[in-house]
Amino acid sequence: MANTYSIGIDIGGTNTDIGLVTPNGKIVQRRSIPTNAYTELAPYVRDMVHEIESMVKEQTTCDGQAVAIEGIGIGAPNGNFYTGCVDNAPNLTIKGNLDFGKEINKYIHVPVVLSNDANAAAYGEYIYGGAKGMKHFIMFTLGTGVGSGIVVDGKLVHGSTGGAGELGHNILIPNGRQCSCGRKGCLETYTSARGIVQTYCELKGCHVTPEVTSKMIGELAHQGDPIAIKTWETVADQLGLAMANSVTFSAPEAIFLMGGPAQVGEPLLKPLRQAFEKYLLNIYQGSCQIRMSELKANEVAILGAAALIKMKK
Amino acid sequence: MANTYSIGIDIGGTNTDIGLVTPNGKIVQRRSIPTNAYTELAPYVRDMVHEIESMVKEQTTCDGQAVAIEGIGIGAPNGNFYTGCVDNAPNLTIKGNLDFGKEINKYIHVPVVLSNDANAAAYGEYIYGGAKGMKHFIMFTLGTGVGSGIVVDGKLVHGSTGGAGELGHNILIPNGRQCSCGRKGCLETYTSARGIVQTYCELKGCHVTPEVTSKMIGELAHQGDPIAIKTWETVADQLGLAMANSVTFSAPEAIFLMGGPAQVGEPLLKPLRQAFEKYLLNIYQGSCQIRMSELKANEVAILGAAALIKMKK
Repeated sequence: MANTYSIGIDIGGTNTDIGLVTPNGKIVQRRSIPTNAYTELAPYVRDMVHEIESMVKEQTTCDGQAVAIEGIGIGAPNGNFYTGCVDNAPNLTIKGNLDFGKEINKYIHVPVVLSNDANAAAYGEYIYGGAKGMKHFIMFTLGTGVGSGIVVDGKLVHGSTGGAGELGHNILIPNGRQCSCGRKGCLETYTSARGIVQTYCELKGCHVTPEVTSKMIGELAHQGDPIAIKTWETVADQLGLAMANSVTFSAPEAIFLMGGPAQVGEPLLKPLRQAFEKYLLNIYQGSCQIRMSELKANEVAILGAAALIKMKK
Repeated sequence: MANTYSIGIDIGGTNTDIGLVTPNGKIVQRRSIPTNAYTELAPYVRDMVHEIESMVKEQTTCDGQAVAIEGIGIGAPNGNFYTGCVDNAPNLTIKGNLDFGKEINKYIHVPVVLSNDANAAAYGEYIYGGAKGMKHFIMFTLGTGVGSGIVVDGKLVHGSTGGAGELGHNILIPNGRQCSCGRKGCLETYTSARGIVQTYCELKGCHVTPEVTSKMIGELAHQGDPIAIKTWETVADQLGLAMANSVTFSAPEAIFLMGGPAQVGEPLLKPLRQAFEKYLLNIYQGSCQIRMSELKANEVAILGAAALIKMKK
């Protein structure tokens, strides 16, 4: 008998984090390679596989018996579940249409499943976190951008293109703030880390500078700074509206929240719950909770990726 | 061998339409009883069953052989797929929690499936209309209100409560028009028949009176009336935004449109397609079409209800 593990790979613009994960969602080995050191897929995957083999070897020593790999899950920006490819991700130094499964299978013959990072986070919550056993929920991830992953009837929604679940680009305020996607008023322009900083600077009447961060605004709110408190109330109102709107789509049991800016806690969560109830259609009142992700911030990306292999195509 | 048919029942506040439907979606017999003549479920269902038996008898004569009923599908306001009940529909004179399946099965022992009317319309399009073979699409129904039905992975989305797919109550314009649901700025307040009339009257600077109808505004637009044309352009912009936002959720292949106000045709559809493309996130460009329902206006409700029995719980 071999102990069976899965591999979770989180491809970020700067680093690629790779983890060996137990069936219960414990990361027992982890490695990192610098994504931006590569411009070609082949050497990047070769080094990725080298790290996987090294982790398997080390774990074999720990377990005192053979280690089997059930599959490899990859979370990546622009990752497409249907094609298994990453298509021209703007943040990656490796360009083109990247077929990770094909390349990895030259070395390791196990299923490779790929999706975008927010979908992976949602599925990680479903397999290993607070959404275990739920059939309908939505995950919002706040960070540099705003991502989302949607589970309906126990399945991740990928849509006809593989690109479903982009609620960060729901237009919240028509003709609102300019978004990097070229349109105006997307949720992301208000509730991403940058959007939060912009709101704070608008309220304070100061310029946006690199010194102002959402983390700093969080600390100021905890110290009682009225402008910081007002910033989080404003963000909560905008995010609460977007969440209430998402409920009219799939009537989820819960909406999960994760990512750096969400770590501020009560200055965001208290007004967020109030705004959500205020904006929620009466027929959904009491049927849907806002909850924080139960996965650790530094583990969610690997666990989400590893969870993807539990999914059926 | 018996010929097999299904029954579709559309429960409206005024009339209940009942049809005998072939496997190909042809309504071969239809009847109507006045919903608002009843205040109790038992006599209402008894008369409903009487009409079904009469249709079966007549069709047996037409076919010259036995007629079998595969199942009974019901589309109703506030219809809940999970419970099979209609819960306190404000438009019905029969009050309370109405268990149609239980009552009908006292007379006819076939499966009874129930859902709300917009979900039924979407499923009718899927089984008998233009969405045949699609795995992901969304239906918007314009009328007194604005309803929607969402199909993901070939299944109607009912959500955790049975009440999913209420995109008419997506808040489109924060702090916008007062909605009958008690909140402000819902899509329904802009693109329902009443919302369209209100926009016309605002643009014209006149009072909303019963003489002004969306049908009349449609005729005026076809005659070249600039205020009527501007009204439909405004409605198209609002509906196009809502549709583009819905694509970020499930990346459908198509969005279908039906209902009285949509019958105006090009004065709405041309600017609607332009607005939709303008508001659509770049990754979805070219992947999703706006299409008119292919079912006849006077058949869609019965066909949608009949289609429900093709669904697996």
